[in-house]
Amino acid sequence: MKVRVLVRLKPGIMDVQGAAVKRALAGLGFSELKDLRVGKVIDVDVADATPQEARTRVGEMCRQLLANPILEDYTIETVDDLAPREAGR
Amino acid sequence: MKVRVLVRLKPGIMDVQGAAVKRALAGLGFSELKDLRVGKVIDVDVADATPQEARTRVGEMCRQLLANPILEDYTIETVDDLAPREAGR
Repeated sequence: MKVRVLVRLKPGIMDVQGAAVKRALAGLGFSELKDLRVGKVIDVDVADATPQEARTRVGEMCRQLLANPILEDYTIETVDDLAPREAGR
Repeated sequence: MKVRVLVRLKPGIMDVQGAAVKRALAGLGFSELKDLRVGKVIDVDVADATPQEARTRVGEMCRQLLANPILEDYTIETVDDLAPREAGR
């Protein structure tokens, strides 16, 4: 079961990397850029049978290691969420 | 228009960070982990009117700055792709 985890800085936290990338893009002429933030995507493949089981276990991984709960929020997406849309692209 | 960019190492490229995280999780008892890879998510808000325009401009950003074409692949997802699914969660 493939699961995608998105780990992002919480809204109030200054995103230094994002600000630097935004400034660099503005320097390249991308003036239409209103906001840019950088986070992590973690693609996990777990042996769990059901999306619900996988989601639960990956949630534990996030709380124990993948995300820093002081600074970061995480979102878990299973392939069930993603596959039909990706196929459509 | 909000656009999400996922930047990941190409399949053949060794993911040192992912391997380290995978080993750390195995040490915490997550033995069901088959594979784990770490990439970047870049959340961009651009002033373009249509999803198609936004996708084109963000594609240019990826080619010029956001992704290293030697090592990395990128995927662009517009909020149109994502919103109904996120609302359903």
